[in-house]
Amino acid sequence: MNDFSASDMPPAPERAFASDNAAGAHPAVVQAVVDANEGHALAYGADRWTEEAQARFRDLFGPTSEAYLVWNGTGANVMALATMAHPAECVVCSEWAHIAVDEAGAPERALGAKLLTLPAPTAKLVPAQLQALAHLQGVQHHAQPGVVSITQSTELGTLYTADEVAALCDQAHRMGMLVHLDGARIANATAALGGSVAALRSFTVDAGVDVVSFGGTKAGLLGGEAVVFLNPSLALRAKYVRKMVNQLPSKMRFVAAQFNALLHDELWIRLAQQSNATATALYEATRILPGVQFDHAPEVNSLFPTLPAAAIEPLRDWCFFWDWDVARCQVRWMTAWDTTLPDVERFAAGVRHLLADVARA
Amino acid sequence: MNDFSASDMPPAPERAFASDNAAGAHPAVVQAVVDANEGHALAYGADRWTEEAQARFRDLFGPTSEAYLVWNGTGANVMALATMAHPAECVVCSEWAHIAVDEAGAPERALGAKLLTLPAPTAKLVPAQLQALAHLQGVQHHAQPGVVSITQSTELGTLYTADEVAALCDQAHRMGMLVHLDGARIANATAALGGSVAALRSFTVDAGVDVVSFGGTKAGLLGGEAVVFLNPSLALRAKYVRKMVNQLPSKMRFVAAQFNALLHDELWIRLAQQSNATATALYEATRILPGVQFDHAPEVNSLFPTLPAAAIEPLRDWCFFWDWDVARCQVRWMTAWDTTLPDVERFAAGVRHLLADVARA
Amino acid sequence: MNDFSASDMPPAPERAFASDNAAGAHPAVVQAVVDANEGHALAYGADRWTEEAQARFRDLFGPTSEAYLVWNGTGANVMALATMAHPAECVVCSEWAHIAVDEAGAPERALGAKLLTLPAPTAKLVPAQLQALAHLQGVQHHAQPGVVSITQSTELGTLYTADEVAALCDQAHRMGMLVHLDGARIANATAALGGSVAALRSFTVDAGVDVVSFGGTKAGLLGGEAVVFLNPSLALRAKYVRKMVNQLPSKMRFVAAQFNALLHDELWIRLAQQSNATATALYEATRILPGVQFDHAPEVNSLFPTLPAAAIEPLRDWCFFWDWDVARCQVRWMTAWDTTLPDVERFAAGVRHLLADVARA
Amino acid sequence: MNDFSASDMPPAPERAFASDNAAGAHPAVVQAVVDANEGHALAYGADRWTEEAQARFRDLFGPTSEAYLVWNGTGANVMALATMAHPAECVVCSEWAHIAVDEAGAPERALGAKLLTLPAPTAKLVPAQLQALAHLQGVQHHAQPGVVSITQSTELGTLYTADEVAALCDQAHRMGMLVHLDGARIANATAALGGSVAALRSFTVDAGVDVVSFGGTKAGLLGGEAVVFLNPSLALRAKYVRKMVNQLPSKMRFVAAQFNALLHDELWIRLAQQSNATATALYEATRILPGVQFDHAPEVNSLFPTLPAAAIEPLRDWCFFWDWDVARCQVRWMTAWDTTLPDVERFAAGVRHLLADVARA
Repeated sequence: MNDFSASDMPPAPERAFASDNAAGAHPAVVQAVVDANEGHALAYGADRWTEEAQARFRDLFGPTSEAYLVWNGTGANVMALATMAHPAECVVCSEWAHIAVDEAGAPERALGAKLLTLPAPTAKLVPAQLQALAHLQGVQHHAQPGVVSITQSTELGTLYTADEVAALCDQAHRMGMLVHLDGARIANATAALGGSVAALRSFTVDAGVDVVSFGGTKAGLLGGEAVVFLNPSLALRAKYVRKMVNQLPSKMRFVAAQFNALLHDELWIRLAQQSNATATALYEATRILPGVQFDHAPEVNSLFPTLPAAAIEPLRDWCFFWDWDVARCQVRWMTAWDTTLPDVERFAAGVRHLLADVARA
Repeated sequence: MNDFSASDMPPAPERAFASDNAAGAHPAVVQAVVDANEGHALAYGADRWTEEAQARFRDLFGPTSEAYLVWNGTGANVMALATMAHPAECVVCSEWAHIAVDEAGAPERALGAKLLTLPAPTAKLVPAQLQALAHLQGVQHHAQPGVVSITQSTELGTLYTADEVAALCDQAHRMGMLVHLDGARIANATAALGGSVAALRSFTVDAGVDVVSFGGTKAGLLGGEAVVFLNPSLALRAKYVRKMVNQLPSKMRFVAAQFNALLHDELWIRLAQQSNATATALYEATRILPGVQFDHAPEVNSLFPTLPAAAIEPLRDWCFFWDWDVARCQVRWMTAWDTTLPDVERFAAGVRHLLADVARA
Repeated sequence: MNDFSASDMPPAPERAFASDNAAGAHPAVVQAVVDANEGHALAYGADRWTEEAQARFRDLFGPTSEAYLVWNGTGANVMALATMAHPAECVVCSEWAHIAVDEAGAPERALGAKLLTLPAPTAKLVPAQLQALAHLQGVQHHAQPGVVSITQSTELGTLYTADEVAALCDQAHRMGMLVHLDGARIANATAALGGSVAALRSFTVDAGVDVVSFGGTKAGLLGGEAVVFLNPSLALRAKYVRKMVNQLPSKMRFVAAQFNALLHDELWIRLAQQSNATATALYEATRILPGVQFDHAPEVNSLFPTLPAAAIEPLRDWCFFWDWDVARCQVRWMTAWDTTLPDVERFAAGVRHLLADVARA
Repeated sequence: MNDFSASDMPPAPERAFASDNAAGAHPAVVQAVVDANEGHALAYGADRWTEEAQARFRDLFGPTSEAYLVWNGTGANVMALATMAHPAECVVCSEWAHIAVDEAGAPERALGAKLLTLPAPTAKLVPAQLQALAHLQGVQHHAQPGVVSITQSTELGTLYTADEVAALCDQAHRMGMLVHLDGARIANATAALGGSVAALRSFTVDAGVDVVSFGGTKAGLLGGEAVVFLNPSLALRAKYVRKMVNQLPSKMRFVAAQFNALLHDELWIRLAQQSNATATALYEATRILPGVQFDHAPEVNSLFPTLPAAAIEPLRDWCFFWDWDVARCQVRWMTAWDTTLPDVERFAAGVRHLLADVARA
């Protein structure tokens, strides 16, 4: 219940700014599923669509990489980590890491391991933080740091440069640790860091990352992710672990077909460029409004503005988005692969309208 | 390398008899996904398709039941069991149970619990077997039997009658145990036991089952299952456990839409009737062939014939199916929702043709 | 290699200040083991010594409490938490908690659960920190806070007052959480807070704690701890969980006999009074020395002084103790049940001597 | 309530035949604990008693073996297996294995792995059973056989010959599996197979076993076991895993001191020879009694006679022992390190007396 009515608001955008997983799938992806629905094909990956998808991932990450298709992001992360971590090892990550915050303890459950969360105001780890863990190594009372998991782009919408990833990998490997990259939004990161396969490689294979969770769902699929072993020696037990963590799709062709469409002709990069670009457009269109404050420009597809307290609920009623930090009146606006400039314009117009109302009150 | 050439074989059927998960999805299911791909919808189940699916499951299992959509069968089973079992309890199941044999240790991993497998020549448990576990109860050295998991229809293609399920549930409940029903092929069981919602209820709600894994994938979906809590008090932690075992679909509307199509107008029952009927037809068409032996008529959609050793490979080369018991020359033929009578006729013709060749050799 | 020689140091104390688990066992405890070694007695707790120990714990914690003897502190904590936590719940604790820092991931492994560590400069949690977790409750992406584990006395040698524990319990219970108290040094806490059974009860039973890990090893045993369920309804699966986490002693009489000696005539409180008193004496004797700095007086049996950097190694060579925060030149001195005032005097004399040397250098 | 009174029974033996863990500790073991209780010693194994114990185990198993002291048998087994098994691997064992039957699901919980139990009428596995598992290898739906665990002497009191163990190890290693030997009664096996360190080596190191759980408790300790890595490359994470499964003794000197006494001058072998010899004596003294039936002579220290139904309860009331197979009227009589020939004679006299009564009834 608030004093501002949405009744005289301008028309809401066709698509809200709630999340990139509120978007549907790209038409080409859906069409690929329709096309793959032809007769019988053996289950569990023994089909030609899966073979094609694996080849497409090798095109991205190199001929010795191995990709395993899975259902969802948490599943991809858990599968990757359960394959990588040895007994009594812990997984090091930022305090903002999705694996630590948003996965309901799934990693701890499936791995039987501790997540060691490190402070990270921008959700990015730095090599010195790994180095500082050296005092745990060899001490029998402590879970041994075995895997570092970083997120690219991060949960706060920030980016590691390729050099930053490489420095983390170097430090981790020097300490005997492996590196996992949670790429739930790896498409956005790729788009932001060059928009090419070379860009993708720069912060993964070339940087020394061992295993990647490659996000498909937020990038335009109905649902589907991949775990890509850049270090193929780590894939030795991958297929068993995939089954063990409930991530082996039965009619796998339908996950594979989606990826084949998304990876075709760099559609995944182009869609991410669109979501990044509309986020920047929204930033530009709203940063100038009195009462809207940003800490920084968006690096990918999420913005974290603070708003006047009175504006949040009516604005959300008009066009949904999520809170971020209630205490600070900070919210999250997120674009998706299908967000359009008209969506941005309408949304910005609504924000402008409402803030003016609030200011008048 | 064998002596029999497939070159003079009659044309192979359009659909082989490898598995019901080799089939694609029913066109109505695919169309439902296409239709659901309209604009944005909140993720993780806060969408109208999921609301509809939950209502449809309540129509099946009663107004206090609660359905949770998940990715796949192993995931459904693990989620159900992880919600049901208390610490230090074990899950009792047949030695043929999918959870014990075909899930790569996923239940043990996610539950941290033992599966106690009991001998079951027809893959069916009987109450006396549960009763015999009473000597474990209260003994601190033994994992305590906490959940009984039965499969309907079973991994061997057999069926529990409603009375048999009820007797197991009574025995289990008397001993303080809960009952899980792995219904990866619950549609086939429903079709075989009456072909109605009443039939479904007879061996689930009415029989006293606590939690059901409701299979969708084998029944005609692209991919999707549901965990249905018939005893709603058990659902208290269901949504957290679903996330914890990596089974929370992000764009859930696309799983829900599939179920809405499948559950509409009892399509799921009609498709299962078709697969059951074609299995029976195949049985009738081949049981009379010299060299083909069946232990019994199919109860649902799978047959387990023994064949002359020399016939197996050439027949498989012509139209794929899986071995069952190599030592006995036993194979598995399985129909799917889309198997047709012409498929059956062509396949039977091929078997007849080849067996004649083999007999001549 | 340092410039200060230990050659002209005064004689080292008979007992160093490394840890309370560097001490041996009290003679009465050893004698009890010798006495219990008479003929045969059934294993796993069906013996008269265990019966006596259980009665002694009921004398401490009330007639409905139930005590289970176990091997060690990590085991006691893991058993307690594995009995208390439901699936998909997390255990809330301070960032200094032994369960989070010093148990090599044992809780995460055995529970399959996340530990949610909260900042706590003095190793003590406050109710507002629990209240702040309310935003996690009901959200399917987050492990649900199910158990709060506090340590008394804490890993930093601080104490909760009975009122502070009660306030935490009230807050936890209001939120549907249970409270575990890690009492590895519960004897020291009891001694410090009144030195009586009433004092023990004030911060456990009376305060609303649900389950206690009752430390015996640091209090003067050869080895042995107890998990005491103050809320007996939680003990329903305790004996199975004890076995499941490898904490069921076979010849249990020898653990029980130790406790019977320690709990007899409040020996455990008297020994803890001694270790607390000698810690205070050491504080008084060294706080006045130039270069030695304390943040505060000891509340129980541990001191955390900062020392001149050059003094640490020679001092340690002379009489061993552990580093605490190397960056701050902070070390830990800890007394045990058998530490004597002459030990304190000798140690203080050595510190004084060495610091004078360092100052001269 | 039965018809036979114990009132006129001869005097019961001083020690019953319930179990070898009903015995106390050898006086030399207790004395060693008393002697080790001198002043302070660093915890967690950094003490001279532990150093000595490690050396004594190297004397037994060779200079590159590594021994880790732990609390109890279940803990030793869980630690060994948790160190040996990779993700998604299962542990193969006999249907009688203690890890499968008597550990309350501890291995499944701590390992997150399946135990694959194989039929074994005498509790012994044979190489062909391992070979038959080859069909699971490489199949993503099945937990991969990673470790074989055998028990020596077995839970049924049988023995593997050194050649039998070697054949199992060869088969396992050829298939890429490791071999664990649960030696809760390794002393009895050693005594029975030659009574020398050479005998011990013949069925462990020389046979190719990778990791041994070396039992101390049943052999005459107060409590204590060891996990010995014969293949030292497997010990890389042993110390962290020990802590992770709650098996790191704090005041380790008191476990070590016990072993030092037991391993001194082959006391462990001599005590096991005594328990084996008294079991044989009991067999000889009772096999001739009408109504007592044995399947075979004892190989170590346990007998499994069948008795007249009416005799069991009165006999047990007079001198306790455990049932084995109630349906068959089969019980277990077990000797311990301290069982004497007079104990045997008195017990046999009582059995004779009671059976005569029963026969007269």
